[in-house]
Amino acid sequence: MVAVRKEFRELASPEAAHEAIASLGLEPEPETVPLADASGRVLAERIDAERDVPGFDRAKLDGYALRAADTFGAGETDPATLDLVGRVDAGTEPDVTVGVGECVEISTGAVMPDGADAMVMVEETDLVENGDGNEHVAVRTSVTPGGNVAFAGTDVAAGERALGTGTRITPREVGLLSALGVDAVPVRGKPTVGIVSTGEELVRPGDELHDERGQIYDVNSYSIAASVADAGGVPELYPHTGDDYDEMERVLSQAADECDLVLSSGSTSASAVDVVYRVVEERGELLVHGVAVKPGKPMLVGKLADSAYVGLPGYPVSALTIFRTFVAPAIRRAAGLPESTMATTTGELVERERHAEGRHRFVSVGLVETGDGRTLVYPVDKGSGATTSLAEADGVVEMPADVTYLDAGETVTVQLFSPDVRPPAVFGVGEDDPLLSLALDRVATARYLGVGTRPGLRRLRADVPDVAVTAGPVDLDRESEADEPELLADWRREWGLVVPHGNPDEVSGLADLADRDLRFVNRTTASGLRTTLANALAALADERGVERHEVVESIDGFDAGRRAHESPARVVRSGDADVALGLRATAAKLDMGFVSCGHERVRLLGNPDRVEKTGVQALVAALDPEAGLAEGLAGYSM
Amino acid sequence: MVAVRKEFRELASPEAAHEAIASLGLEPEPETVPLADASGRVLAERIDAERDVPGFDRAKLDGYALRAADTFGAGETDPATLDLVGRVDAGTEPDVTVGVGECVEISTGAVMPDGADAMVMVEETDLVENGDGNEHVAVRTSVTPGGNVAFAGTDVAAGERALGTGTRITPREVGLLSALGVDAVPVRGKPTVGIVSTGEELVRPGDELHDERGQIYDVNSYSIAASVADAGGVPELYPHTGDDYDEMERVLSQAADECDLVLSSGSTSASAVDVVYRVVEERGELLVHGVAVKPGKPMLVGKLADSAYVGLPGYPVSALTIFRTFVAPAIRRAAGLPESTMATTTGELVERERHAEGRHRFVSVGLVETGDGRTLVYPVDKGSGATTSLAEADGVVEMPADVTYLDAGETVTVQLFSPDVRPPAVFGVGEDDPLLSLALDRVATARYLGVGTRPGLRRLRADVPDVAVTAGPVDLDRESEADEPELLADWRREWGLVVPHGNPDEVSGLADLADRDLRFVNRTTASGLRTTLANALAALADERGVERHEVVESIDGFDAGRRAHESPARVVRSGDADVALGLRATAAKLDMGFVSCGHERVRLLGNPDRVEKTGVQALVAALDPEAGLAEGLAGYSM
Repeated sequence: MVAVRKEFRELASPEAAHEAIASLGLEPEPETVPLADASGRVLAERIDAERDVPGFDRAKLDGYALRAADTFGAGETDPATLDLVGRVDAGTEPDVTVGVGECVEISTGAVMPDGADAMVMVEETDLVENGDGNEHVAVRTSVTPGGNVAFAGTDVAAGERALGTGTRITPREVGLLSALGVDAVPVRGKPTVGIVSTGEELVRPGDELHDERGQIYDVNSYSIAASVADAGGVPELYPHTGDDYDEMERVLSQAADECDLVLSSGSTSASAVDVVYRVVEERGELLVHGVAVKPGKPMLVGKLADSAYVGLPGYPVSALTIFRTFVAPAIRRAAGLPESTMATTTGELVERERHAEGRHRFVSVGLVETGDGRTLVYPVDKGSGATTSLAEADGVVEMPADVTYLDAGETVTVQLFSPDVRPPAVFGVGEDDPLLSLALDRVATARYLGVGTRPGLRRLRADVPDVAVTAGPVDLDRESEADEPELLADWRREWGLVVPHGNPDEVSGLADLADRDLRFVNRTTASGLRTTLANALAALADERGVERHEVVESIDGFDAGRRAHESPARVVRSGDADVALGLRATAAKLDMGFVSCGHERVRLLGNPDRVEKTGVQALVAALDPEAGLAEGLAGYSM
Repeated sequence: MVAVRKEFRELASPEAAHEAIASLGLEPEPETVPLADASGRVLAERIDAERDVPGFDRAKLDGYALRAADTFGAGETDPATLDLVGRVDAGTEPDVTVGVGECVEISTGAVMPDGADAMVMVEETDLVENGDGNEHVAVRTSVTPGGNVAFAGTDVAAGERALGTGTRITPREVGLLSALGVDAVPVRGKPTVGIVSTGEELVRPGDELHDERGQIYDVNSYSIAASVADAGGVPELYPHTGDDYDEMERVLSQAADECDLVLSSGSTSASAVDVVYRVVEERGELLVHGVAVKPGKPMLVGKLADSAYVGLPGYPVSALTIFRTFVAPAIRRAAGLPESTMATTTGELVERERHAEGRHRFVSVGLVETGDGRTLVYPVDKGSGATTSLAEADGVVEMPADVTYLDAGETVTVQLFSPDVRPPAVFGVGEDDPLLSLALDRVATARYLGVGTRPGLRRLRADVPDVAVTAGPVDLDRESEADEPELLADWRREWGLVVPHGNPDEVSGLADLADRDLRFVNRTTASGLRTTLANALAALADERGVERHEVVESIDGFDAGRRAHESPARVVRSGDADVALGLRATAAKLDMGFVSCGHERVRLLGNPDRVEKTGVQALVAALDPEAGLAEGLAGYSM
């Protein structure tokens, strides 16, 4: 039987979902932490001063403690001369009293000795020797009572309200707590958040993955755990479960016992989701099943035993979007933290974004600066199943349910994923290439999408990226000269057939692909390298006097293709194929055999308006032949 | 001999100080951390995909895997009926092959079985029973080859550049690293920062403090440590040292051995600073001594053995200002973090701020919202020695050396101490009072400065705070009715003489103060309670037919005064005095004796323009007699 997927017929509004989570009560008990661990926490109680700060009358400067009355009338030309009768250092108890006509040397921060009611700074005095064997001090100014003395309690007085309940403790509050001698600080507890990954197919990163069984690495557990920590919670990872009811119930119940909030996450398979759903319905209560947002519709909200429960969607982008929108604010509230600083920026949307679903939508977007002060906003939409779109986006644009489209050129507000998100220094698209990767390493913040040669060129012409990289022959002719991409750098790479180490099938060239029974792995049609291969096969067909399609059709595996340069070679290395389209550099890196078919040209093309961008210049500098980047990369020359 | 203070004759410019620190090289070695600890760190190397993601051709939905060609031409009215020959679940290896006219049930995320080149979602099919005992599936749509299949490597392909060197790892990058199976992440090291506190007078918070020896709690160590952590460094606290050269050299040398950067901090005493200075000159190199900034002039920059060294000024506000301005950016750079988000806001300066020093100045300021959309900016200047100004400020306004003043009403830019700093919900000033403190607890973010009754009223009339609290008689009459503060709440508190437990001196009233040889502790003249006392003493003088000053002068300790309500009582409790001016509530709290002298009225007065502010309303609600706040507070009635 096909699993009967739970239908979400009555989707809750985003507001109702927020309210449901707010009703769950995730607040942990307060706790006491050492001062050294208090920064970033939130005060659970008011802190009143238990003492005066300073706790004594304190000299503000280096100089002399004295009786102010003894200096009345003194000045530059008519100093008051006092007998120096002792000295008080900071951190010591005075062993001297100041009488009429006397003074005591005193250092900054020292206790004012009895008898003194003011002090004079050393710069306004002179030490004088009267020849009587005693030391005297000439005071060249008139001092008022209390002058240069910080009286006890002037900074903080005992009983004063020093810090209020709910104060976020920053280094400044740590300083004030230190001054008051508070070394055990009562703070709001951090909500403990249990994360239960579900799905038979999940494997923890670092463990061995069996592709043939359809295993994938568990993406949500660690990324949600990191998000929980960012929101002020304490993440607890639980062992991931398959879709066995008893196992799921055991793990979820344990998590509910131990945590303030339980998040289930990780699976996109309907059967695992159904089991979670049943456990929550039977062991707790579901308040919300399904929310009118995109992505993230299958969100669940409820109670699980005495804990709060939220079921996140399985796809990573959806899970993080739902977490950020609905769960993070609740965790922050429970931790006593202020609402998150929602950092925003504005920019120009590069293409019309349609929306006809009646659900509140979060569009993941990337940012690129044009170099003339404008910021462009482009949608990053590789499907919510794609993990790369996690790292390729800078924020989201919200489209309320009643907005049907946003127009190209429209100014939109982007909610940045965090306040320190910045557009990359350079944004490139196109063919992937090992030499290019080395060059990108030399730019502080570079973003590069390996979409292939032709899609890269198309996007460059649409004025979105700063640069595009092409491989093989490209047609740069266009009607308007003004829009022509500018050639910023180029290099050559050796391409051919990657075979197992030692070339066991004794493959000698392209003809073998057509003539022999070899399993071949190609690149996708977006790849410039595939075009280079196709041209070479066309030449082979010409040579043989046959149609090109005849040659192509005789190659087992020609039509399918892999997206990046190493991917086909790895299929050969795993034993699932005999020959892969690839680069000499790849064969060298993977210690495989290589049959050369020639060299192709790789070009870095620039958006003419953005050649002056710092990031573009840095990339060009890295690709200067003088920089020697091609050295050590097999088959490369500049 | 008075310590010869180092003269800072040639102050470095702020730019030169930045350059000197940048030249020191604090960069630690890279390290490898587990994925679970990678969030917030910075990639030290490029991460290329070592595998395809997904690693297999993957079903995108629940449904049936099939051969697309078998569905060509099918539709709602003319479905293609296929034989159901098996099933593949997520996380399992297919044990079935799809032949012509066949299909296989498949769940989301499962491996596409051999023979199938597409899939159809379950919603576009019907299970049919032909009565032949076998199961069949009617497909009501035509599927294209590759339909609903995520091919291996479509998300990330092996060899692709996944994340660049220098990428800040957020939850999204954690997700991508998870997908690639990376569980050990090469990251930039965090610079280790040793903090050496100097000064004989310093005591660690939590330890016993001897006021009589002039001891104070060490404020800078923990607040700088928290700042180091915020900037991305790892703080190490060293034992604090006095001003013994050998001890200082030993501790500083150990810190230099163990850390990338050594900060000395904590002392304002010239002798300790001089010793630090000598150690650095002899064991390293001083590049900068003295910077033309205020506060913070006595900053030092240099090398100490192989480590970087910065000497911070001793006063807490100066130390944190210098840290934030000069040291934090260097630590962030060394950790590979982007420049700090300098959150700023603008507001109207409430008073003219003069500046005639030729030094770049950082003015600590607080923020208050007027309720009509304006933000006021007021200087917080209690002297750089005050630790309370740490917590009373929200940010700084910079005044370059060539700016001589900023005018009242001028719009200024405030650099917030952190991006989540917000003006308080209510800003009050005036008399300090235990009932008021309880009420302030009920407002989410309240700021209250216990400046006393008269200064509070003066500031309220200058339109800076939202509310002021007065105690005792106040004169609210003014010429203009419009500006009159509004009475928002009031209550009564019992005042009198606080004496040791059991009243050993058998004090019976104010007359004893004048007539007997008792050591008295008063409040400062800013306090409304002192005015109430003065009025009572004037009445006593009238009763006796003497001048008021005669009575006052006969009281030992009348002229001096303590700033807050508990402070005088604590002096009595410590044995340094016999009688204190105070409240019955304070005597009850401290378990001391109390001689009642009467009741005084305490008033909450509001700025008429801001009565509607949420925070003001919350405070008023907390002070509603119905709220019962006075219950349990001895001597209070509402």
